[in-house]
Amino acid sequence: MAFDDHFRSETAALYTDLYQLTMLQAYWREGMDETAVFDLFVRRLKDRNYLLACGLEQALEYLEELSFSEEALTYLEAQDQFSDDFLAWLEDFEFTGDVYAVPEGTPVFPDEPLVEVVAPIGEAQLAETFLLNQITFQTMIASKAVRVVEAARSGGRDRLVADFGMRRMHGTDASMKAARAAYIAGVDATSNVAAGQAYDLPITGTMAHSYIEAHDSEMDAFREFAELYPETILLVDTYDTISGVQKVIDLAEEKGDDFQVRGIRLDSGDLAELAKESRRLLDQAGLTDVMIFVSSGLDEYKIRDLLDREAPIDGFGVGTKMGTSADQPALDSAYKLCGYAGTPRMKLSSEKSNLPGRKQVIRQYENGTAVRDVIATEEADRHTGAPLLERVMAEGERTDAGSPRALDAHREHAAARVAELPDRLRALPSTAEGYEVVLSDAMERRLDETRTALRDEMAVEAR
Amino acid sequence: MAFDDHFRSETAALYTDLYQLTMLQAYWREGMDETAVFDLFVRRLKDRNYLLACGLEQALEYLEELSFSEEALTYLEAQDQFSDDFLAWLEDFEFTGDVYAVPEGTPVFPDEPLVEVVAPIGEAQLAETFLLNQITFQTMIASKAVRVVEAARSGGRDRLVADFGMRRMHGTDASMKAARAAYIAGVDATSNVAAGQAYDLPITGTMAHSYIEAHDSEMDAFREFAELYPETILLVDTYDTISGVQKVIDLAEEKGDDFQVRGIRLDSGDLAELAKESRRLLDQAGLTDVMIFVSSGLDEYKIRDLLDREAPIDGFGVGTKMGTSADQPALDSAYKLCGYAGTPRMKLSSEKSNLPGRKQVIRQYENGTAVRDVIATEEADRHTGAPLLERVMAEGERTDAGSPRALDAHREHAAARVAELPDRLRALPSTAEGYEVVLSDAMERRLDETRTALRDEMAVEAR
Repeated sequence: MAFDDHFRSETAALYTDLYQLTMLQAYWREGMDETAVFDLFVRRLKDRNYLLACGLEQALEYLEELSFSEEALTYLEAQDQFSDDFLAWLEDFEFTGDVYAVPEGTPVFPDEPLVEVVAPIGEAQLAETFLLNQITFQTMIASKAVRVVEAARSGGRDRLVADFGMRRMHGTDASMKAARAAYIAGVDATSNVAAGQAYDLPITGTMAHSYIEAHDSEMDAFREFAELYPETILLVDTYDTISGVQKVIDLAEEKGDDFQVRGIRLDSGDLAELAKESRRLLDQAGLTDVMIFVSSGLDEYKIRDLLDREAPIDGFGVGTKMGTSADQPALDSAYKLCGYAGTPRMKLSSEKSNLPGRKQVIRQYENGTAVRDVIATEEADRHTGAPLLERVMAEGERTDAGSPRALDAHREHAAARVAELPDRLRALPSTAEGYEVVLSDAMERRLDETRTALRDEMAVEAR
Repeated sequence: MAFDDHFRSETAALYTDLYQLTMLQAYWREGMDETAVFDLFVRRLKDRNYLLACGLEQALEYLEELSFSEEALTYLEAQDQFSDDFLAWLEDFEFTGDVYAVPEGTPVFPDEPLVEVVAPIGEAQLAETFLLNQITFQTMIASKAVRVVEAARSGGRDRLVADFGMRRMHGTDASMKAARAAYIAGVDATSNVAAGQAYDLPITGTMAHSYIEAHDSEMDAFREFAELYPETILLVDTYDTISGVQKVIDLAEEKGDDFQVRGIRLDSGDLAELAKESRRLLDQAGLTDVMIFVSSGLDEYKIRDLLDREAPIDGFGVGTKMGTSADQPALDSAYKLCGYAGTPRMKLSSEKSNLPGRKQVIRQYENGTAVRDVIATEEADRHTGAPLLERVMAEGERTDAGSPRALDAHREHAAARVAELPDRLRALPSTAEGYEVVLSDAMERRLDETRTALRDEMAVEAR
């Protein structure tokens, strides 16, 4: 189908920046095929106290299946940059490396590797773009969504949060992966039916203003919709919210014991005031079980404000601001070479540096609360605490730790790990105090040695 | 392939909010199949003086091919909300309506329909989510990219702009469609190879820091890369920018007449100062043809500042900020019912209102400059000026005006239409003065009549 042209598995190997392919050919031509270590990490946080790692499953699927189809090779051939020998070599290209990663749903902090790829340099290099694209996006959405969920559950009440964002998310893939990431972060359901089908997510929805407007009267529309969907949620603000609520009450009288409408949705106006007034009217009519859902430009701050004003709200439909992570629509993610052929490597330029060599991250606890992370070298056994990075792929094949898991497992993992964080990190405004992330002594030593060695080499070269 | 699970043509009909499907069943059950008019428009602008309409091609492809596969029907059946009769009816579902739209690359303003769908109400309703998703995103990116292009070409110099954003765009589809939208807006090339293949776009790229770091020395890396790609662009800031430039000069001496390196790239530090110093060194060495490209957190404002500081830059690699439209990562787009069964419809709630009935937008000119748009009723013949909306689909089939066109045609259209805009709209800060968009007398009358009729109906109902 033509509108499938956005991203097709047939040409998935082309889903990369051109320079990855030109560098791949250069490495191939120079016979550079030693093992490289690349870290995927985020350099700094803005408006977030922590990130929730997400998107690993898609990264592993990509690495497992990465290969060049005839169609892809034909396209590359036409670019006049790639030799026939190299294109022939690409025919058998596959990813043969190891991958270490923190499980999806794990809170992480700046400079900590979310993923570490250890593979022949060309393979690891080629994967950069897809891995960054998927993991940056899903981590960004999960990190935003967990804030929304925490705000909605303030006071310990289990209010529902639904992802309503697909219409203004950035394309189809965004809305699929955002539904997935938001669910892992604790969002309860999505309006995205395709995501429901692909990821076995709960799907949900109410009704649109257009449905009401197409009927001769709001009452007719309510009556018809509730007849077909007895437990529906009726949208009451098309013309005037309070008279909309009154019609729901009229419908309840009309239907008597058959009335099973689950709730109403408010989508405009002063949501706190309207929720209070609606609750009063519904309760007065004996409809104490009818829930109040709200939507319209919501994010974690607006939800907190509504609940601070004691709005009697049972659930939130959260759209664009969560689905685009509107206050921070990208993470400052990077995928950097940390080692090649057994030697640690790094970039010296000050604002874009990285930690050399392979790593482990150790989370240390006091009384069940996470208090400190140590970024250690891979021989991390002398540190007490929980290591975060697991080997999820070995020689191009998934390990047990890397096997696909049900989203509910990721979701439970996320809830448990977030619950261990200090309260100040879980509060809404970003905390100045932050969280302590330190380098182990061995990592400090390696950093010094690598920097010194690089400067010495440069001095030699400059002579 | 498993990582194709994000959005598949087999389940494209499920790519919608659940409520579209529940409403579709309700319309079907109630026998409501009269023609509806839905407008896709943007309610207001922020940090933009105009929008560049984009994404229509994908919308039309979707409408042409919309149908329910067995896989989609099986999933819906399992939801326990849809009757067997309805699911059987869905087997033959197709889009049979008319579509009116402004051509891709046309500047548009708030309240002006980018797309008008005129179809049996269930069909038009179902299409809402996909149409909003694709057209909102591509229009947002084109509208951002045209600002970047205009900034880069200040002083009338034709500096190159390349899209380098795929790694931090929101998923795969975003990076494909953004490359497309940016090209229509005037961006010259993309680093996204898959987008190059899918849309026949120029692809471009340089080299990464990792390539330099993996070599024993920067000089070795430059030498090897230039050997394989004589006309390449060398990245000079891995260790120290100025000594990187010096090595390019050394390489030129080494290679003599064989030196064909096209340019250098600066990716960190004070880009304006470094560009000036690099230019001075290159020129001194007789390398006046070696161009200077820059990247690193660029957007239209940073580009303007660099050029205001007279930085001798020949091209820009623009990434995350353009590819996520970072200052405005969503448009306030809407898809609203404007008519049903021959009667204009609208929503009364103040902040989310819409204009009733079918429309035409007339752009009026003075001395070749666009000075005013008139949002008119569809019988717009009494207004002088150029009508913007064309019929692109009739009874579910594309018209001539809706036939697929080469991206270059859209790009040329965009350049020509943007050139007609008043200078103040093309300048960078958003102008308070804006652009005059008025309602025609007939549209004003219809708006009044529809509002009055709705209020009368509500009064009757409230009695």
